[in-house]
Amino acid sequence: MADITRLLISCADGRGIVAGVSQFLCNAGANIVSSDQHSTDPRGGAFFMRMEFHLPMSADSRSAFETQFAREVATPFQMDWRMWDANTPKRVAVLVSREDHCLFDLLWRWRRGRLAAANVTLVASNHPDLRTDVEAFGLPYENLHTENVRKREVEQRLLDLLDGRADLVVLARYMQILSGDFLERVAVPVINIHHSFLPAFAGAKPYGRAKERGVKLIGATAHYVTEDLDAGPIIEQDVIRVSHRDNIAALTRLGADIERAVLARAVAWHCEDRVLVHENTTVVF
Amino acid sequence: MADITRLLISCADGRGIVAGVSQFLCNAGANIVSSDQHSTDPRGGAFFMRMEFHLPMSADSRSAFETQFAREVATPFQMDWRMWDANTPKRVAVLVSREDHCLFDLLWRWRRGRLAAANVTLVASNHPDLRTDVEAFGLPYENLHTENVRKREVEQRLLDLLDGRADLVVLARYMQILSGDFLERVAVPVINIHHSFLPAFAGAKPYGRAKERGVKLIGATAHYVTEDLDAGPIIEQDVIRVSHRDNIAALTRLGADIERAVLARAVAWHCEDRVLVHENTTVVF
Amino acid sequence: MADITRLLISCADGRGIVAGVSQFLCNAGANIVSSDQHSTDPRGGAFFMRMEFHLPMSADSRSAFETQFAREVATPFQMDWRMWDANTPKRVAVLVSREDHCLFDLLWRWRRGRLAAANVTLVASNHPDLRTDVEAFGLPYENLHTENVRKREVEQRLLDLLDGRADLVVLARYMQILSGDFLERVAVPVINIHHSFLPAFAGAKPYGRAKERGVKLIGATAHYVTEDLDAGPIIEQDVIRVSHRDNIAALTRLGADIERAVLARAVAWHCEDRVLVHENTTVVF
Amino acid sequence: MADITRLLISCADGRGIVAGVSQFLCNAGANIVSSDQHSTDPRGGAFFMRMEFHLPMSADSRSAFETQFAREVATPFQMDWRMWDANTPKRVAVLVSREDHCLFDLLWRWRRGRLAAANVTLVASNHPDLRTDVEAFGLPYENLHTENVRKREVEQRLLDLLDGRADLVVLARYMQILSGDFLERVAVPVINIHHSFLPAFAGAKPYGRAKERGVKLIGATAHYVTEDLDAGPIIEQDVIRVSHRDNIAALTRLGADIERAVLARAVAWHCEDRVLVHENTTVVF
Repeated sequence: MADITRLLISCADGRGIVAGVSQFLCNAGANIVSSDQHSTDPRGGAFFMRMEFHLPMSADSRSAFETQFAREVATPFQMDWRMWDANTPKRVAVLVSREDHCLFDLLWRWRRGRLAAANVTLVASNHPDLRTDVEAFGLPYENLHTENVRKREVEQRLLDLLDGRADLVVLARYMQILSGDFLERVAVPVINIHHSFLPAFAGAKPYGRAKERGVKLIGATAHYVTEDLDAGPIIEQDVIRVSHRDNIAALTRLGADIERAVLARAVAWHCEDRVLVHENTTVVF
Repeated sequence: MADITRLLISCADGRGIVAGVSQFLCNAGANIVSSDQHSTDPRGGAFFMRMEFHLPMSADSRSAFETQFAREVATPFQMDWRMWDANTPKRVAVLVSREDHCLFDLLWRWRRGRLAAANVTLVASNHPDLRTDVEAFGLPYENLHTENVRKREVEQRLLDLLDGRADLVVLARYMQILSGDFLERVAVPVINIHHSFLPAFAGAKPYGRAKERGVKLIGATAHYVTEDLDAGPIIEQDVIRVSHRDNIAALTRLGADIERAVLARAVAWHCEDRVLVHENTTVVF
Repeated sequence: MADITRLLISCADGRGIVAGVSQFLCNAGANIVSSDQHSTDPRGGAFFMRMEFHLPMSADSRSAFETQFAREVATPFQMDWRMWDANTPKRVAVLVSREDHCLFDLLWRWRRGRLAAANVTLVASNHPDLRTDVEAFGLPYENLHTENVRKREVEQRLLDLLDGRADLVVLARYMQILSGDFLERVAVPVINIHHSFLPAFAGAKPYGRAKERGVKLIGATAHYVTEDLDAGPIIEQDVIRVSHRDNIAALTRLGADIERAVLARAVAWHCEDRVLVHENTTVVF
Repeated sequence: MADITRLLISCADGRGIVAGVSQFLCNAGANIVSSDQHSTDPRGGAFFMRMEFHLPMSADSRSAFETQFAREVATPFQMDWRMWDANTPKRVAVLVSREDHCLFDLLWRWRRGRLAAANVTLVASNHPDLRTDVEAFGLPYENLHTENVRKREVEQRLLDLLDGRADLVVLARYMQILSGDFLERVAVPVINIHHSFLPAFAGAKPYGRAKERGVKLIGATAHYVTEDLDAGPIIEQDVIRVSHRDNIAALTRLGADIERAVLARAVAWHCEDRVLVHENTTVVF
């Protein structure tokens, strides 16, 4: 539907927030299409809200509208807030190594119109393997790695590539650890898919360790990347049942289905502005 | 939390509903604790809302408050609406035959404080079998059936028993079909648990028919009872995986776990005023 | 692992079957790698067995081995049985209409080596739309339909195409009903994916009917095709949770993930000879 | 079914094991009712088998039968093995603290005939709270703890209580850590339910830590108890979806349903001799 704007708010809970926001929107002639809210505690907790409202606006009037909202609502309630025109998909850059299942599931969903809030704009990899398949989707494929290139240089190349071209970076089984310096400079959210049910089996070789521990379910976790490896806010997780019959190869095969499903959901939700970060957790509306 | 009131609204969607309600509550000094809404279509669809708000009120002031809400908000928007004091649990009467798993799971949850919005007040059955166990929960047990009693008389006895003593009737595997006349006269919602994933295997002996059809999952469905057998609005469903190894006895055993879980969720949600009926379906907030 | 043979048996249950088979294999120098069995009733029921055993054989010795097995084991126990060399993948022909999610998921799994027991050999469709994408997988794409071609002629064309080239036909959302005559003449199993949790919503437009009925889970069913529409033996089913928020388009989108997963499992299991038909149900080892 | 014996075998994999066992049983006049096997690797791996066979035997003939099996089959293949008369339920002692959901679910299933392979014989607790409810099931309730009793003395009391009266000890939320000395001396398996998806959140207060970490699923794990806390072989696990809306109390409430289901399955499977330990993992047939 055209002319939908999304509004996201975080602030301390208190009386009159919903009324204040909805009265402002009503006065502006907007129709609230959907609304979600969450409070960690009505007395002194944190308050989160996501609204979608219908209001045709030119670029100029949008700017004026946001200024007025800031002055009349956001500032009095000391809100962290943002608005996003729902007609503008998020530009998504995907980083990948050799495993292709998460990448191609994202690309296939995107092409099929099932990631409507995302626009994949480039794929970058530290391996040349997937170039032909990616280019068949009409996407540029950047091979970051060449011999004797140091990590710092790879990250600089990535920063140059992403600069002003991505609203989100997705690590679709990108088997490199990004430095804290990179995360700070890239200045957009980075989502990773980890092939375990975190916090179990953080770090390397989770399927091998799952086999050794004898777990009866394996999982995957999509989370925002922070400087602490596999410890950022979790967006989505899921699991699949396994048994003693499944060796590590089978776990890897079964897990791949969960990884791609979990990552696709997390990317879709992020791009639809459904995810708010709260301390080291997420609120997903 | 004390002094919480639940407000449920159904009406035609249109501009200003959320603003109207929340502004009214704000002016009354209420703090909105949670809010859910759903629209089947922002243009001309049906709109549903559930709000919980905090506002200390005496019985008198509650009455005045409701009158004012009706005049200022509900009538202008042509709302179907109701309010319910969250401190007042719904009075629940449970009807049962011989199978005890759904009954005892409800009673156990209730005693443990896990059905906080419900207060089980009586158990009635067409068999004497479960009297001792029910009475151990401190509940009256009514044996409806004696020899040569006709269905019409059993229903009249039930109506007398329930009159003014129940806000909800739960059929926890009550293997009798209630007449349309009964449903009309009892005048409170009736929830049934059916031991299949409806609309598959409506009617008698669903596990036997599931075995014969060779399904790979069996399920249970909690629904509001209407005059059409097993065809009322569905509140909750769930399934469990089965295989060729499971005979009808095993399906019955596995299914019992799903039945009791699904019924417990449906009863809890109903008693928390989370369920709104829309045509032959439900909105569950 | 090389030199693995799969043995499938159905017969009336009785004493000494497992001993007879395993003693025969032991005497032949085979090592039993895996064994599954099922009896509907040890006294007079039906017995099913799947064994994988390791035994290097030339084509000639395999033939002699099978003859000996028939004489010494299968005939005395009146077994229905078959052996299949696990090194020989099943040749799979895929029929499709316009929806591509099941098709491409199968092709992607096959290319990635995750359908090791299958070899996709051709794709046929009643629409031209997917030619380019299918050919990118190195597969022939047959467009069956041209204007004014009658169903009978399409089926004849299909029979010519499949003749001697397929061990399995997969209907990956092929929106045409195959005639009983076709099913008889094609003489290999045909697997269909139906986009509902059968027996609920057999026939056309299952997602629309699921929305109307207000179910809380939607599903998909992979089954062998028989002349009775959507009534053949079920191989696999799965479901996903939905809510009042999901309109028919959302059900269709969510269901697509379940359809492709269920079909992929059914095709893999069939090609690994894990599925035995028993009356109108399946035993899946 | 009467006269069923269960046979469990672990040994190094090799040629002829299945044939040897099944030929022996066939010669003895037994009918194999069910058979499961697993090999970690057909070449040099570990082999596991569970068979149920029908063979009427007096106590004397059973003893002779076992001796003959040991001599002719078990010793040549260097098997670890055991037989168990399926008519003899395992005697189960349950240890509990204050939380009653796992305990009463076990007792209810047992009374209802759904734990047919188990016979609950006593309940012991370090709190007096649950005495009345346990005794209503006709079971003795032992209150282990009195003021100033040291752990060592409690364990000694427990050992005296269990001596010769239990084939299995179940910790149904028994919030005490048992010493290695106790585990050695009790000389029967001990199953614990841990209220997290191990290895995540081993140790104390798992729901609080799950909330803090922001996981999207919570779980429960049933495992054999070893001296390493929460690190023994896992028998069964399951999870349930949670969201930011669920506070620690809600996680505890939702988790309780998973805990009781997982523990009930683990106890049933153990008592049906379906669980074989392999290193720090389990094979569950």
